Amino acid sequence: MTKPFKRILLTGAGGNLGRRLRERLNAFSDIVRLADVADIGPAGPGEEVVQCDLADRESVMRMCEGVDAILHFGGVSTEVEFAPIMQANLLGLVNLYEAVHKLGIRRVVFASSNHTMGMYETTELVDASMPPRPDGYYGLSKVWGESLSRFYWDRFGVETVCIRIGYCFPEPTTHRQMVTWLSLDDLVELLHRSLVTPRVGHTVTFGVSDNPGRWWDDRHARHLCFRPKDSSAQFAHKLPAGGDYPPADDLTTLHQGGPFLNMGPKYPS
Amino acid sequence: MTKPFKRILLTGAGGNLGRRLRERLNAFSDIVRLADVADIGPAGPGEEVVQCDLADRESVMRMCEGVDAILHFGGVSTEVEFAPIMQANLLGLVNLYEAVHKLGIRRVVFASSNHTMGMYETTELVDASMPPRPDGYYGLSKVWGESLSRFYWDRFGVETVCIRIGYCFPEPTTHRQMVTWLSLDDLVELLHRSLVTPRVGHTVTFGVSDNPGRWWDDRHARHLCFRPKDSSAQFAHKLPAGGDYPPADDLTTLHQGGPFLNMGPKYPS
Amino acid sequence: MTKPFKRILLTGAGGNLGRRLRERLNAFSDIVRLADVADIGPAGPGEEVVQCDLADRESVMRMCEGVDAILHFGGVSTEVEFAPIMQANLLGLVNLYEAVHKLGIRRVVFASSNHTMGMYETTELVDASMPPRPDGYYGLSKVWGESLSRFYWDRFGVETVCIRIGYCFPEPTTHRQMVTWLSLDDLVELLHRSLVTPRVGHTVTFGVSDNPGRWWDDRHARHLCFRPKDSSAQFAHKLPAGGDYPPADDLTTLHQGGPFLNMGPKYPS
Amino acid sequence: MTKPFKRILLTGAGGNLGRRLRERLNAFSDIVRLADVADIGPAGPGEEVVQCDLADRESVMRMCEGVDAILHFGGVSTEVEFAPIMQANLLGLVNLYEAVHKLGIRRVVFASSNHTMGMYETTELVDASMPPRPDGYYGLSKVWGESLSRFYWDRFGVETVCIRIGYCFPEPTTHRQMVTWLSLDDLVELLHRSLVTPRVGHTVTFGVSDNPGRWWDDRHARHLCFRPKDSSAQFAHKLPAGGDYPPADDLTTLHQGGPFLNMGPKYPS
Amino acid sequence: MTKPFKRILLTGAGGNLGRRLRERLNAFSDIVRLADVADIGPAGPGEEVVQCDLADRESVMRMCEGVDAILHFGGVSTEVEFAPIMQANLLGLVNLYEAVHKLGIRRVVFASSNHTMGMYETTELVDASMPPRPDGYYGLSKVWGESLSRFYWDRFGVETVCIRIGYCFPEPTTHRQMVTWLSLDDLVELLHRSLVTPRVGHTVTFGVSDNPGRWWDDRHARHLCFRPKDSSAQFAHKLPAGGDYPPADDLTTLHQGGPFLNMGPKYPS
Amino acid sequence: MTKPFKRILLTGAGGNLGRRLRERLNAFSDIVRLADVADIGPAGPGEEVVQCDLADRESVMRMCEGVDAILHFGGVSTEVEFAPIMQANLLGLVNLYEAVHKLGIRRVVFASSNHTMGMYETTELVDASMPPRPDGYYGLSKVWGESLSRFYWDRFGVETVCIRIGYCFPEPTTHRQMVTWLSLDDLVELLHRSLVTPRVGHTVTFGVSDNPGRWWDDRHARHLCFRPKDSSAQFAHKLPAGGDYPPADDLTTLHQGGPFLNMGPKYPS
Repeated sequence: MTKPFKRILLTGAGGNLGRRLRERLNAFSDIVRLADVADIGPAGPGEEVVQCDLADRESVMRMCEGVDAILHFGGVSTEVEFAPIMQANLLGLVNLYEAVHKLGIRRVVFASSNHTMGMYETTELVDASMPPRPDGYYGLSKVWGESLSRFYWDRFGVETVCIRIGYCFPEPTTHRQMVTWLSLDDLVELLHRSLVTPRVGHTVTFGVSDNPGRWWDDRHARHLCFRPKDSSAQFAHKLPAGGDYPPADDLTTLHQGGPFLNMGPKYPS
Repeated sequence: MTKPFKRILLTGAGGNLGRRLRERLNAFSDIVRLADVADIGPAGPGEEVVQCDLADRESVMRMCEGVDAILHFGGVSTEVEFAPIMQANLLGLVNLYEAVHKLGIRRVVFASSNHTMGMYETTELVDASMPPRPDGYYGLSKVWGESLSRFYWDRFGVETVCIRIGYCFPEPTTHRQMVTWLSLDDLVELLHRSLVTPRVGHTVTFGVSDNPGRWWDDRHARHLCFRPKDSSAQFAHKLPAGGDYPPADDLTTLHQGGPFLNMGPKYPS
Repeated sequence: MTKPFKRILLTGAGGNLGRRLRERLNAFSDIVRLADVADIGPAGPGEEVVQCDLADRESVMRMCEGVDAILHFGGVSTEVEFAPIMQANLLGLVNLYEAVHKLGIRRVVFASSNHTMGMYETTELVDASMPPRPDGYYGLSKVWGESLSRFYWDRFGVETVCIRIGYCFPEPTTHRQMVTWLSLDDLVELLHRSLVTPRVGHTVTFGVSDNPGRWWDDRHARHLCFRPKDSSAQFAHKLPAGGDYPPADDLTTLHQGGPFLNMGPKYPS
Repeated sequence: MTKPFKRILLTGAGGNLGRRLRERLNAFSDIVRLADVADIGPAGPGEEVVQCDLADRESVMRMCEGVDAILHFGGVSTEVEFAPIMQANLLGLVNLYEAVHKLGIRRVVFASSNHTMGMYETTELVDASMPPRPDGYYGLSKVWGESLSRFYWDRFGVETVCIRIGYCFPEPTTHRQMVTWLSLDDLVELLHRSLVTPRVGHTVTFGVSDNPGRWWDDRHARHLCFRPKDSSAQFAHKLPAGGDYPPADDLTTLHQGGPFLNMGPKYPS
Repeated sequence: MTKPFKRILLTGAGGNLGRRLRERLNAFSDIVRLADVADIGPAGPGEEVVQCDLADRESVMRMCEGVDAILHFGGVSTEVEFAPIMQANLLGLVNLYEAVHKLGIRRVVFASSNHTMGMYETTELVDASMPPRPDGYYGLSKVWGESLSRFYWDRFGVETVCIRIGYCFPEPTTHRQMVTWLSLDDLVELLHRSLVTPRVGHTVTFGVSDNPGRWWDDRHARHLCFRPKDSSAQFAHKLPAGGDYPPADDLTTLHQGGPFLNMGPKYPS
Repeated sequence: MTKPFKRILLTGAGGNLGRRLRERLNAFSDIVRLADVADIGPAGPGEEVVQCDLADRESVMRMCEGVDAILHFGGVSTEVEFAPIMQANLLGLVNLYEAVHKLGIRRVVFASSNHTMGMYETTELVDASMPPRPDGYYGLSKVWGESLSRFYWDRFGVETVCIRIGYCFPEPTTHRQMVTWLSLDDLVELLHRSLVTPRVGHTVTFGVSDNPGRWWDDRHARHLCFRPKDSSAQFAHKLPAGGDYPPADDLTTLHQGGPFLNMGPKYPS
């Protein structure tokens, strides 16, 4: 069967999500180019491997040459001090979009994060039209990526889907994870739809499965034709019964960002 | 079993949709009066046949006499030059609502069109509260019908459901048709709900099946108690794999109206 | 299995809903305290019984002592003259929240009503952000409860879920009841979710099953992780076929409040 | 010159605002009926005096007989314990609207309060479409009045203007008062417009002068044709220079209700 | 001094507004071409006169040749039977925009009307994003013009300012006219701004002076840099004192369209 | 007279706006600390001078020690290549807020820019609740500052006013500058109000005078009690008469960002 693409690029291929995605992407493309800042071992069949520091302009340009579309999962993916985030997630994104624009690449899928909106409360319904309220340096860097890609669409017509990924691990074990869980299958299908939909412009979508409760309203991304198939409901019986309310001043249950609120800049110092 | 109506009128009975609907309507009414500008052959059991030019005031009045409710599918149903649209869709609607008002008919279902909103982009989510953005003379004439029926509700209490019908053919074969597809069964059920819901006031709804992606938010019409049962997902395996993006300046994929954008007034002349 | 609570309080335990809920609540709590203004008979296993006039401040305080959470179904539950509503639903609520606040009870589930919004039209979609439009003294008293509980959250951090309950009887027999129907199972699950969700702040939700049509948009309460399992569609075949439109000036089909519109103050006098 | 009314009723004529308004109302009406629960002395020329307990149904009916329109400033006008508020502001309003409805009085101007919205933050812009967030029993009682009058408009066509009055004293001396100040002249003109505008339906408006800053957006009441003429800017030079920020946890500067937040139920007990 | 335009076209030059505008337009253009269906006499200095039936396609094309911009005040300007409205305001607009598009004319100012929104209530605040609710054939024809010009902007880049003109006569004498009054000077300035603003896209604005009350929110047209200088307040002293409320069922004071509500189709017949 | 502050800090004191503000700030504070990356000469009376590279964490900490509030005008203030913007506007802001947080400084006024929203069209009305659409690296860096300061408010209670400054030069000479002009006096008053308002939380406001036309709706910042006194109308007579429309594809008149659209990354390269 014909695949949609000749060559797509997955950055961050050595990261947690990158490793799980690696084996799934050959369905979309004849060749999958895998990039990471670290050595991720040899290429398998239908793969290419590139080692690349996102902060290195020339290296990023080479990484992007010849690809049809990019799944950008590279960069720092958790709350740490600012310096590495600046290099990989701020400068790295600038380098990436410069390459995309110069090389005429038409489509990017950007692994954004729910931490762009982590300071909204857990009783609020968040959608893509609401102003960002990040919960730390990491969330701020994802807001940067969303703004930068918006600019490249508005000004140069480069299309991007920003996916604000939820909790994408095999099994949720807390209330927050039950709400934000995204199964790997659903992520793969969302990537698929983000890649093949004829027009996406600059779309911000939430990467979350069809869980019983959701903090996110994804109506602005219906044109992606994505429907999650999995649900965290399957794990509900494993969770504690509830009724033991967290302290009234517990920030991590008051805000959508959860534990990230206690990992950010200068806290507790 | 008792049917809801004694006599309903279907206009445009000889058109594409009219012919497919003809056999389905006897479930709703003891008698189905079929009208068309052309000769549509003899009436079957439980049918009446009327030939009527919508631009002819007297003829429209006679067509409407004695009916309980109207399904108005008549008039020009595609993008053509203005003259026939003016006669059938502008003057024709004026004649129809004059008759409805004079005769005390309480309910009309008006076959409007998604081309009332065809200039919205395919990455936008459209709902009934947004201003019309038609994509040609045909779409403009449907805006006319929606405004006129709104007036008859506001001023005289005549109830209308305007259905912005999507792609109502047996099988979608393009991305646009996958998004806008409406199965005949779903259309029939939507007509049914539009006819029997006790109060509809002036309702604008989108006629679309439960497809994986939708450009239209139908929350303003939930009171119709309509739920589509079909989905274009069943046809997905027949479509090309994607990845071959249309040119950046291709209006027909940028806008919801699709091919109609190249069929309108003075283009390319 | 561990239950979420040691002791929860159900007020109005002798009322229509209270009696149906009584046997279901032991799943949530080791002890269920049942309160009513009338004598409701002896306590069963795992139950406590308290007789309490909500207008009696001291009595309410005693009723609330030692409970973890409250399901407040007490008070007048239909349209009657103002005096008893004032005592039970206005003063009663003041007494209840004073007790809740003084005793440090963290969570209340308040049986509000769709009659808080009964003057909206049946063609309108209502959500929790819209201003109240009650349809009589009863609806007004429920607006009072929603405002009072909002105050206790804003000012003192007492959490409340207000459930605007629909038609919660075994079987709907009118169009209005088809739209507003809430099955007992769905109500029980909604109570469950309202009790165990870690944070609810002040949530206003609509208590309604997954019926084909709905007048209410519950997006502001998705964080409760509630999904109705039942639907009034199962009763559709028993209803009349429709087509017999109510008179144009029939207030009870024009407004969501239905028959309550003819039961309110000074009508017809 | 002809005055708009034959007889208008001012309740609460002995209160702070009532006394200041008394001499101004004869411009609007041949006769001004002054009512209060207390003895307010003898009637002057063009005046009638009535003593009335709002909680007394018969007495309220007599008070309202023969009047063309009502300015309702009666009842409890500050934060006190609940009992008197219930009698005068809850039961009192029920009695008043019952009389209005029975007697066919067409127009009421209701002295509501900004304390209906006192729990909004001082950095938020509040308008009449937003849900009430009262800051105590007093504010709650004004929400009651707004809901009750809304019901009487929706159901019976009684027209009311609810004025959420700001700080209506001769001179503001705090930042909060600078923002919320309403001059007596502006109040009188707002009452005038509320009385003579041909149609007001149920209008909620904010009673505030043209101060440099405002927390309230009054766009929903433009049809009253009211424009404030005064401004608190004239007092700015008397205020302290600023820069001495209140403590971060000071509720009275965080919320629009100001000092009322520390006067409400059970605080600090 | 240099004028902005070489030649502008004023249609409807013989109508009520056209005659008052005629002498004012030479400030904007070296030549003012005046068109009307009737004979309007000889051209003055700096003028050209053209007689033109808007329903005549060829004639409209000739009328538009060589002009830089168009002020379209032509067509039927009040509520009459449908036939002449269809010819002048529906077909006429189609002919006009066809000519504009073919001739490459960049800017049209279209005299729309507040009767596009006449069925909104007089207690509602209307803005350009709200759906049309016309009050008769005339209002419907202006909705047609707004939709048609929207299409020509969306599809072909023809810029139009639609001015929903209020009561543009020398002196208001009713409450409705006080609210909707537009002075001639303000109209002229609004036309000026509509012509010279570098970009207007498709702008819908309300033509109304700075009156004490307004039903219309014009925030979507601030980019025109128009500020009214006149106000109906100057006439307030001449109006009756008020207090004599219209009957509760008087449609002309309930709705913004005023007397037009009783002039429309089939009323009272 | 007592001044509001003991010591305020102005960064970017050597820049265009910094130099003009320098002499005006002594009205607000006993001591004005002036900082710049360049040598700005000796301190005058009531001044302190600090030389500081914003990218140097220790240096920024020292710059902020002992100040009551900060006016942050430092960093790169126009569209240049990314490297210096990253150092001064991204890392520089991180350093600044780290210092502010550690030192317990309560209030920052941040010189943001209208270029955060430069890709909105000139026919759109922009407000603070709309998502950012920057027009280049510079605009992106200001979005960064707004997001970062939002985080410091949400998470740590540091108050910031972000002023999206318009065209702040002595005299506007183009249509765009007429719309976006901000007089120095108005800027000074806006800074004053931003400093002394007791509570500002995280406020985003537009810095623009009371010009005849505005692209920006500042309703979300009314609590600052700022009213511009100047208007670009005084310069209108100096501008060309208009009528000479820019080319249809001219990005700089289509978008609010104006000439910045042609100064950004990789254009035309």
